[in-house]
Amino acid sequence: MIFPDRLRRYLPILSWGAQYSRQTLAGDVVAAAIMATILIPGALANALLIGLPPQMGLYACIAPLVLYALFGTSRALAVGPVAISSMMTVAATAQVAAQGTPEYVGAATALAMLAGLLQIAMGALRLGFLANFLSRPVISGFITAAAVQIAAGQVGPLLGVSSKGETLLDVLTSLVSSLGNVSVATAVLGVGALVFLLWARAGIQKLLLGIGLREALADKLAKTAPALVIVTTAVAAWGLELEAHKVGVLGRVPKGLPSIALPPFDVALWTKLLVPALLICIVGYVQSISVALTLAAKRRQRVEPDQELIALGAADVGSAMSGGFPVTGALSGSVVNLAAGAQTPAAGAFTALGVALATLFLTPLLYFVPRAALGAIIIGAVLSLVDVKAIKRTYAYSGTDFAAMVGTILLTWATGLVAGLAVGVGLSIFLHLYGTSRPHVAVVGQIPGTMTFRNVSRHTVITSPEILSLRVDASLYFPNARFIEDLVNDAVAANPAVRHLILECPAVNTIDASGLESLEAINQRLKDGGVAFHLSEVKGPVMDRLKRSHFLNELTGKVHLTQYDAVSSINPDLARRTLDAQRVAGTAQ
Amino acid sequence: MIFPDRLRRYLPILSWGAQYSRQTLAGDVVAAAIMATILIPGALANALLIGLPPQMGLYACIAPLVLYALFGTSRALAVGPVAISSMMTVAATAQVAAQGTPEYVGAATALAMLAGLLQIAMGALRLGFLANFLSRPVISGFITAAAVQIAAGQVGPLLGVSSKGETLLDVLTSLVSSLGNVSVATAVLGVGALVFLLWARAGIQKLLLGIGLREALADKLAKTAPALVIVTTAVAAWGLELEAHKVGVLGRVPKGLPSIALPPFDVALWTKLLVPALLICIVGYVQSISVALTLAAKRRQRVEPDQELIALGAADVGSAMSGGFPVTGALSGSVVNLAAGAQTPAAGAFTALGVALATLFLTPLLYFVPRAALGAIIIGAVLSLVDVKAIKRTYAYSGTDFAAMVGTILLTWATGLVAGLAVGVGLSIFLHLYGTSRPHVAVVGQIPGTMTFRNVSRHTVITSPEILSLRVDASLYFPNARFIEDLVNDAVAANPAVRHLILECPAVNTIDASGLESLEAINQRLKDGGVAFHLSEVKGPVMDRLKRSHFLNELTGKVHLTQYDAVSSINPDLARRTLDAQRVAGTAQ
Repeated sequence: MIFPDRLRRYLPILSWGAQYSRQTLAGDVVAAAIMATILIPGALANALLIGLPPQMGLYACIAPLVLYALFGTSRALAVGPVAISSMMTVAATAQVAAQGTPEYVGAATALAMLAGLLQIAMGALRLGFLANFLSRPVISGFITAAAVQIAAGQVGPLLGVSSKGETLLDVLTSLVSSLGNVSVATAVLGVGALVFLLWARAGIQKLLLGIGLREALADKLAKTAPALVIVTTAVAAWGLELEAHKVGVLGRVPKGLPSIALPPFDVALWTKLLVPALLICIVGYVQSISVALTLAAKRRQRVEPDQELIALGAADVGSAMSGGFPVTGALSGSVVNLAAGAQTPAAGAFTALGVALATLFLTPLLYFVPRAALGAIIIGAVLSLVDVKAIKRTYAYSGTDFAAMVGTILLTWATGLVAGLAVGVGLSIFLHLYGTSRPHVAVVGQIPGTMTFRNVSRHTVITSPEILSLRVDASLYFPNARFIEDLVNDAVAANPAVRHLILECPAVNTIDASGLESLEAINQRLKDGGVAFHLSEVKGPVMDRLKRSHFLNELTGKVHLTQYDAVSSINPDLARRTLDAQRVAGTAQ
Repeated sequence: MIFPDRLRRYLPILSWGAQYSRQTLAGDVVAAAIMATILIPGALANALLIGLPPQMGLYACIAPLVLYALFGTSRALAVGPVAISSMMTVAATAQVAAQGTPEYVGAATALAMLAGLLQIAMGALRLGFLANFLSRPVISGFITAAAVQIAAGQVGPLLGVSSKGETLLDVLTSLVSSLGNVSVATAVLGVGALVFLLWARAGIQKLLLGIGLREALADKLAKTAPALVIVTTAVAAWGLELEAHKVGVLGRVPKGLPSIALPPFDVALWTKLLVPALLICIVGYVQSISVALTLAAKRRQRVEPDQELIALGAADVGSAMSGGFPVTGALSGSVVNLAAGAQTPAAGAFTALGVALATLFLTPLLYFVPRAALGAIIIGAVLSLVDVKAIKRTYAYSGTDFAAMVGTILLTWATGLVAGLAVGVGLSIFLHLYGTSRPHVAVVGQIPGTMTFRNVSRHTVITSPEILSLRVDASLYFPNARFIEDLVNDAVAANPAVRHLILECPAVNTIDASGLESLEAINQRLKDGGVAFHLSEVKGPVMDRLKRSHFLNELTGKVHLTQYDAVSSINPDLARRTLDAQRVAGTAQ
């Protein structure tokens, strides 16, 4: 079938659906069965994490998966409840309603709706680039900090006590103060489950390979460890009557499919949820797209960032309209999806069918699932997100990036997930502007035997006393305009023999109105001091811009194509002699 | 006299005081007389606005002016009570005490003390650079917008009706709804005064020169037009008994000099006032410094931002210790100061003396000054700040700067002065980041007869099919990292013959952690496609940074000192042949 390109762009299913075969169907169905087994425990755990009824976690795994299958461009991405967006949901909904009330449930669905609508709008307006304002150290720091905080928050459920709070400090305080009430049976069960899960990551696979299983099968079975934990602990809770030993279990989970309804619309509520929704929208997108791009690179497939926003938005809106909460693309689930042999996004739709069947027929079996087991599953999932190596690597590479990263981590722990991320973004923008507000400026001279000019303090170069050449390693724009003005004035004052100042501009990528005013001020002051002001190596776009001002008419010197042209037009002998001289190797790069 | 530089820095009076002459004294005294006349009514109005005894407004115009004269670097800035800081003071003190109580008065002085100490601390820590984040289009737009709004706010007093509001819309609405109550006598007097003042700017001088006066004298007399207006209208109000015709006059002004005392120190009180004090400190500074910088630019004088913070802080501390409330640099007052011929900060000290004398001896004479005449003086002063030419010039030069400017103007009108300025700063930062997120990238080739490489679409250059040279005209940092990654991938995909990709980096001023990750991703993907990845013209500081990562070990190509070296190491024949070829003139700069 032939569809117009525009329609194909918005409905990628038209592309892969046309080539759908029996073979891809088989791959997708197997992957879906494994995925459903893996998704259900996580879905239940996330619902409890937010403080919502467990069935809402299941609802968040039905409509969103179908909608992502329709609109998504990644062939492996698995959407569903994810600990970080769930934790951000808690931070937002706790501000507007008390846990356990219908208003709290309504706020969670409204948040999903709002985040979804924002994502669709951003995708349609092709604003996916906004996610780039989250620098990688900020994302990486935020995810590490959130993972630690989420893990700390789940230590309570793991031990059968309460440990709640918006900030890491609150969580730890709450945990310490309730340590006296630890339920031994719960702690044995919870810690046992966690140890098993941490071992299972590599251990199960090794074990299965040892008893002769094929690698692909062993890999797939290893990923079902959470499901195994749930079944084992639920059977134990039922058989040993652990409820009598203060082991909390899920209890009755209502049967049946979600009903379709719009979340509550209330201007005051939506206004309060707008900023958290925007952050969930962006963090969800960033997490998703980085997973999708990584998996696409492994299979040499293309992912379309703006279309991904639309697909994620559709998934969130679908979740909101079917009684769920915010969802996003999850790394662990997606990797399993790929490893399990998913061929097309249809695997997600089949997974949704699996979850739907579970809500219809399997909920009575969930009664005895211990909450401690679900806590262990979340801790196991988030601990893999803690990236200490990234912190070390960033420390070695850049003080500014390291400051942004550590700032984000500490602010996230001190003020909670939403505020920490917001301040982290502000911090990385501020540190960048601060860095460019005091740019590197080098005095340059000609390298003998070449037409090349380099920093006098790094290379053996020839200079002339009447010519001062400065290379500004930055755009001339508002944060640094005044700094450069002062620096040029000081440099000329320190070199009284100078009659020509050449500003070498290969690194000047833009000159904004503030920079232009500074150039005009420099020109005026140099003129008063009898010094001609020249520019060299001005880029085409910068030159086009300057032609639209009066600056070039007022300029006392000239604009030269190259720095060599500039020097040779002022002192042709020196330039030619240096070019003909035997070249002396530079002392540094 | 010779003083150490450090002392001069903290006490600018040592610099300008040494050159003080009879001529500057004359200018300062005339300006001080006019300033005092203008300051007193504003000071009383602000005290009443906060809900404080009227004499506190006068106290806020004595010590602060003397202290600013000692520490300040702006030659025209007039400090004193200003509506914005007064409104912020109300908001803070109303939280801690009831209006009319001694606690309320104490809270206002404590607030001034705290804001002043914070400003001194910021100045001592050299955090004044924060003001550079106000780009010139934002400052210029803000001042134009504020001038229009202040003028609109004074139309009410001019016509004898009320026109209050935080935003231009509120002011205009309030004005229109009260137009029915216009007092004819007030309107005749107010509009007459305004017309006279607008004419006086050039008219008086021309007239006086016409009757044979020397130019310098004519100039000085022309500047006393506002004082002339005040005396004339006060006499008219007294002689014609205009109070009976609904012409509002100042009325009885209480007498008395302030006593020196510390504001109440109470940890609980200061803790509550800390955040409002910080806001007043920052808003006051930003207001002051933008006014000071604008006025300094008009006279080609220097303003030292960190020292300005210290001076403003000293003024606030002085206000607090002499029974006043928070003060800051005022736009309208400063403009009058400059227009009236203030030569040095001493004008402020003389103004303080004038206010002190007035509070002791002249208050009965202020009784008949019509409020409409004061409105006319303010309108006359601020209208000269409306800079339509700057708007046109910015429009011609740069769309981004123009957007920031117009955005600031509209936001200031829509949301009030403080919010408008804050959002204007955010807007110019966002537009800058957006601009750099899609940087200019040029394919470059060698200009025959040179070692110079330029954009293939602007110059006649030689290229080789197996080498693709890209010059990135931007730093590699978080807002553009992924964009450059995609662009390099697309460029290589479009040129299947390419075996070497050279990234020419003369404009790459920094590579942050996000940029480094993108370089690593580019290197990996090019490696998979059998293309070697080279860098050329990498700056010293950038290279130093790269050496601290693993990137250079993994790089498939090399880092070359120049672009010529890069090409000639890959294809020596081509590079040498092109260098020896007859040079063809470039088609553009």
